[in-house]
Amino acid sequence: MSGKKPSQTIVIDWKPDKQSKIPLYSQIVSYFSEKVASGDWVSGQIIPSQRNLSELFGVNRSTIVEAMDELSALGIIESGFGRGTRIANDSWSLLMRDKAPDWQDYIRGGSFHSNVPTVQIINRMEFEPGIIRMSTGELSPDLMQTEITSEVLKRLSTQNVFMNYPDQMGMPGLRSALQEHLRRIGIDVPLSCILIVSGALQALQLISTGIVKAKATVYVEEPSYLASMNIFQSVGAVLKGIPMDSNGISYWMIQEQKIVPQHSLLYTIPTFQNPTGGVMPMSRRVELLNYCRNAHIPIIEDDVLRDLWLEEEPPLPIKSLDQNGVVVYTGSLSKCFSPGLRLGWLVGPESVVRRLADVKMQMDYGVSVLTQQVGEELFRSGLYYEAVDETRQKLRERRDWMLQLLERYFSDLADWDKPAGGFFIWVRLRNRASAEQLFSRALKERLLILPGSVYDNMGCSSAIRLTYGYLSAGEMERGVRRLSELLREMERAQHGIYPQK
Amino acid sequence: MSGKKPSQTIVIDWKPDKQSKIPLYSQIVSYFSEKVASGDWVSGQIIPSQRNLSELFGVNRSTIVEAMDELSALGIIESGFGRGTRIANDSWSLLMRDKAPDWQDYIRGGSFHSNVPTVQIINRMEFEPGIIRMSTGELSPDLMQTEITSEVLKRLSTQNVFMNYPDQMGMPGLRSALQEHLRRIGIDVPLSCILIVSGALQALQLISTGIVKAKATVYVEEPSYLASMNIFQSVGAVLKGIPMDSNGISYWMIQEQKIVPQHSLLYTIPTFQNPTGGVMPMSRRVELLNYCRNAHIPIIEDDVLRDLWLEEEPPLPIKSLDQNGVVVYTGSLSKCFSPGLRLGWLVGPESVVRRLADVKMQMDYGVSVLTQQVGEELFRSGLYYEAVDETRQKLRERRDWMLQLLERYFSDLADWDKPAGGFFIWVRLRNRASAEQLFSRALKERLLILPGSVYDNMGCSSAIRLTYGYLSAGEMERGVRRLSELLREMERAQHGIYPQK
Repeated sequence: MSGKKPSQTIVIDWKPDKQSKIPLYSQIVSYFSEKVASGDWVSGQIIPSQRNLSELFGVNRSTIVEAMDELSALGIIESGFGRGTRIANDSWSLLMRDKAPDWQDYIRGGSFHSNVPTVQIINRMEFEPGIIRMSTGELSPDLMQTEITSEVLKRLSTQNVFMNYPDQMGMPGLRSALQEHLRRIGIDVPLSCILIVSGALQALQLISTGIVKAKATVYVEEPSYLASMNIFQSVGAVLKGIPMDSNGISYWMIQEQKIVPQHSLLYTIPTFQNPTGGVMPMSRRVELLNYCRNAHIPIIEDDVLRDLWLEEEPPLPIKSLDQNGVVVYTGSLSKCFSPGLRLGWLVGPESVVRRLADVKMQMDYGVSVLTQQVGEELFRSGLYYEAVDETRQKLRERRDWMLQLLERYFSDLADWDKPAGGFFIWVRLRNRASAEQLFSRALKERLLILPGSVYDNMGCSSAIRLTYGYLSAGEMERGVRRLSELLREMERAQHGIYPQK
Repeated sequence: MSGKKPSQTIVIDWKPDKQSKIPLYSQIVSYFSEKVASGDWVSGQIIPSQRNLSELFGVNRSTIVEAMDELSALGIIESGFGRGTRIANDSWSLLMRDKAPDWQDYIRGGSFHSNVPTVQIINRMEFEPGIIRMSTGELSPDLMQTEITSEVLKRLSTQNVFMNYPDQMGMPGLRSALQEHLRRIGIDVPLSCILIVSGALQALQLISTGIVKAKATVYVEEPSYLASMNIFQSVGAVLKGIPMDSNGISYWMIQEQKIVPQHSLLYTIPTFQNPTGGVMPMSRRVELLNYCRNAHIPIIEDDVLRDLWLEEEPPLPIKSLDQNGVVVYTGSLSKCFSPGLRLGWLVGPESVVRRLADVKMQMDYGVSVLTQQVGEELFRSGLYYEAVDETRQKLRERRDWMLQLLERYFSDLADWDKPAGGFFIWVRLRNRASAEQLFSRALKERLLILPGSVYDNMGCSSAIRLTYGYLSAGEMERGVRRLSELLREMERAQHGIYPQK
């Protein structure tokens, strides 16, 4: 608004454009709306007579009548009772109130499901200061080999950096470096079967929109990382949890369910499973592949934690056994080297890879070529292997420390297995303690944990996933101790015993 | 297969696992299948009697009967006619044939539409050697400021590179650098309204899955870049082309269509439109915003080419006029600096940005932090502005050269406008020449152009989009000359005049 007291009658210094294809009356309505919206004209100001307007605008009376009718209907002007036509009382706020699109309605209309509330909270809280992130599924900065990344960047800066759009399958140099990398773990495929993606999560996202039918069943381990996301649900597929025994997914229970749906898939993390940390032995891998091959159920094998083994190398991937194109395999740098780089790969039958590459081109035109060039250099030079080797040493210490702490503070409260790799410990609380309740209590003290309910809606709500990859020794101790105290408080409250003053 | 002649009778050196939860008969079936699939056992080999099997496997006769029944039903074994039970004739090929999942069926089932065939061809062909890419919507390597990227990488390599998962909205440093950048073009928003994405295409992808309802109408310019993609169609929305006049989209024709659908959106590229190269003057921007505000139609403003102005700065973005959260704005580094970096940004109402950030977290966990750090350094240091300045000089020469060539070879064949920025020239062929036909002919000579039909299914098939950002002077000349020759050949053929021997 101009600040000075407006004159009684509005001042018109504009004419509609007769050459325009926009109807004249419509131009006049727009002009009035804008003047009011901008605050140039305010409530109560008088509008010249229709005859005057007709002259001022240089248009027919009928055009003015049409415009005034619409302005009146919109509530922008009001007339009558001997006071002449004026800018209406609530015109400005009315214009303002109605102007913004009803975004909530748009947001509700989108097909992609929102993250589950717990995950949304965690995603937000993780970046707040002073939080102890016992939930975070990544290495801490000091476990990552930053100097190696710096070294790679220095090397790149002296080369002619490629800056154009990448090939839709990914840069050939990186793909052939990965081909070598994959051979080390028994996966021997032509380049045409390797697609570069920005992390394994994107691989899943491409699979969900590229090859999954609405209402398809996706079998997952119970509990499974995938249950914490809405990727497959967002395209109308249904996740179905299959229980695990100590060797991994009990695939034979798929059959026992007497459902043989068309277009089903099976998602598994056979190595250092997320969230349980378990490893599927080779025998179960063979059996699972055999079963899925016979049942015509494609397997999605998520193998992002493989290189973080702590005692001995895990069994070869299921994909290494796959002679029939049953398995779509995905790996990445995120867990073992750097999540921020956003570099992953997908290996599958050529037809599937081609299809997913096409979808990817329509989603984001491919992975950052900078990231891809860093990836190529890491694998070609062998720096990647040096880096994970270094990381493993440090990670082993942290795991052992976390196990000591659990032994000290949780031995009467929970059960857990010693993880052979990765950085997750699946802590199963005794006495039916509620993981959700513990999550809420811990959150209040700026302690983030992941309640099992996020991974499994079928009764695992007495487990929590702790991670030892992100915390310092001190934070770990404070966190574990405080969690055990909270748990004891919860137990006492449940039994009606209140803490003494 | 082992290579040596197999013995008559199969050799069994395995027992089912009685501790396993997998039914014994099922384990036996798996064992047989694998032995045949691996080639260890071949057609014609004799299977021991049921009594012997029962002993060898240490299981009941009834279990053997059950297993043999299933193996027989699967066609893996065949029995009878006094020859005993044997591995069946076609067992191996039968196992193999049936083993791969029917991937074509999965591919057909995916919700994301495939790229239109012409675009698929172009995406593939662009990376083949010896192709003249008159279609490519990006700067050529020698127009990009590679030294600046090298300089930035060198600077990063001496810092402590951030390597963890990024904040879900993007890295704070980059976002505040972008806030400054946006202020230069009249967009003044809080940080909470800025989301980092991997290119404007991903912004569109997030919008389509995050806030677009199935069956929503998306109004687009006719022709429009968006029509060449299946982003919105893949979530069930419908693109509706609105004709343009020389000032851009004729928004009033939306109303004339007498459709006032709920949940519609309008997508526009007001500055150096893709594919026509046109610029919407400020007056039309004001009118369009006013119209959409009143009609409650959110605007998606795609502004990726802005910084490639060649004569004078274009009008401010529509978003700079937006007081009511009507406009979701997107920009990127792809067109003006480097497409390979994959860095873009989205600016919109906070609720929308929060929603799209959540969707993005479920799709790919955010943009490469390396890319983000490069972006921050580019904007903070001002190197970005130096780079585009340099690029503009060179690009102007190329545009002028392309215009000269068109004048020389196409003056009697087509019409076009001089682009004021960007790198597209929209060449409207005369005499109803078919752009599709020209595309096919040119393709045979390894000359890639983009036929107008890709951008518009409503009759623009007599136009082609040429680009002057990617080709060298020589390639440009060869390409334009050859295209004009092909066009003349097509015309002669149409009139029954064949080239003379």
